Amino acid sequence: MQPLILLTNDDGVSAEGLRALRKALEEVGEVVVVAPEGARNAVGHALTLHKPLRVRKVEERCFAVNGTPTDCVMLGVYKLLDRKPDLVFSGVNDGPNLGDDVTYSGTVAGAMEGMLLGVPSVAVSMAEESSYFDVAAEFSARLAECVLKNGMPEDTFLNVNVPPLPREEIRGVRITKLGRRIYRTAIVEKTDPRGKPYYWIGGQHPTWTGGEETDFAAVESGFISVSPLHLDLTNYDVLSQMAGWKLWPI
Amino acid sequence: MQPLILLTNDDGVSAEGLRALRKALEEVGEVVVVAPEGARNAVGHALTLHKPLRVRKVEERCFAVNGTPTDCVMLGVYKLLDRKPDLVFSGVNDGPNLGDDVTYSGTVAGAMEGMLLGVPSVAVSMAEESSYFDVAAEFSARLAECVLKNGMPEDTFLNVNVPPLPREEIRGVRITKLGRRIYRTAIVEKTDPRGKPYYWIGGQHPTWTGGEETDFAAVESGFISVSPLHLDLTNYDVLSQMAGWKLWPI
Repeated sequence: MQPLILLTNDDGVSAEGLRALRKALEEVGEVVVVAPEGARNAVGHALTLHKPLRVRKVEERCFAVNGTPTDCVMLGVYKLLDRKPDLVFSGVNDGPNLGDDVTYSGTVAGAMEGMLLGVPSVAVSMAEESSYFDVAAEFSARLAECVLKNGMPEDTFLNVNVPPLPREEIRGVRITKLGRRIYRTAIVEKTDPRGKPYYWIGGQHPTWTGGEETDFAAVESGFISVSPLHLDLTNYDVLSQMAGWKLWPI
Repeated sequence: MQPLILLTNDDGVSAEGLRALRKALEEVGEVVVVAPEGARNAVGHALTLHKPLRVRKVEERCFAVNGTPTDCVMLGVYKLLDRKPDLVFSGVNDGPNLGDDVTYSGTVAGAMEGMLLGVPSVAVSMAEESSYFDVAAEFSARLAECVLKNGMPEDTFLNVNVPPLPREEIRGVRITKLGRRIYRTAIVEKTDPRGKPYYWIGGQHPTWTGGEETDFAAVESGFISVSPLHLDLTNYDVLSQMAGWKLWPI
């Protein structure tokens, strides 16, 4: 039996990055797309609990959902696929998902959810908006084969960022840790046609810190970055440090 | 000068848990509420990038925003407060935010964003839907004083879950790590009045694993759980394990 691959994204079912990834992964196994009907950027690991979800069959092995990437993976695994998938892929996102910012990302959340459901999962992003989706898609197919062969390390999913370069200019692959963002997005304040103020959150490129081993450094140097991530946010280093805090009785 | 505290939540500006927390924190400092106009549950660390944000002044030191808890913290810190707050609190959420599920939580995301903006931050939740918000609010005030006095450990925010008990039945406070969820939410499939199918994501209580030191274990045993969290999702244990994967050239 061919491997079964569930594919989602947060740019929507018709996005170019998803089409390129679908095509490349079809060389590895049977691909079923379950993706948001439109763009769902920066939705984080959001679940739709307050309304019903609708599924539209776009074509054979391709479904559009009025929800988030997390909803799509959950519906795919529990309702739409006839067996548990062997892999979940999310992407290719048209823009970076690096460092602390992975917590905002719908693309990364799709892979988080896959892992929580017990499926080896990978998120793939272009480190800048770019037209080199084919390189990212081909690399993803290689990575898929590699995960199918080696297995995924326990409690781990992978976050991939591909530099916006033609294949021959890519210098290789680095296994990286997440870097730290140090510059914050600006908020624009304007006035609408009726004279009322509004705010709009901007999206400038962040600056970052954390050294050569980070995802930021890898893509800046022309390497594909692969970060093994988990969901245990516990900061173990400070557990004992806090033991002396006098918190009870109140 | 009094400490300045930015307060948000994901149940909306009029929620009972937020009102209780506001009242308790006003004993500690000046509190400014910047909260979603209505409920934003399970929105994760979502940012609103695709539309303008509107701010409505509800009353003195209380603003409603048509966005997520993350948007609220960003707007509060950058636009609405006249100086950088000394603390960010998010809550009291009417329901648990434990284990892996913290990544779905709008309440927890409010504190994540506070930390990313360099402010000591705390998320507070009732470990079951409950009417004992006052206990959680009073404990939060104690914790606020403690953080102002001791400082927050670097790169850390706190996730608090309070068991649904009257004060005299609470056994104390435990500093905990995140537990692991092992049971998944069910999806309900139904048919609408027009005969079309729809899906709705359920919300049963999860079962969990991870032992006595977890947040789940603490609240089940009647203790308030305080988990120090960070945002570095890197799974350092597997970085070297993946070094042998043959990923390039493709």
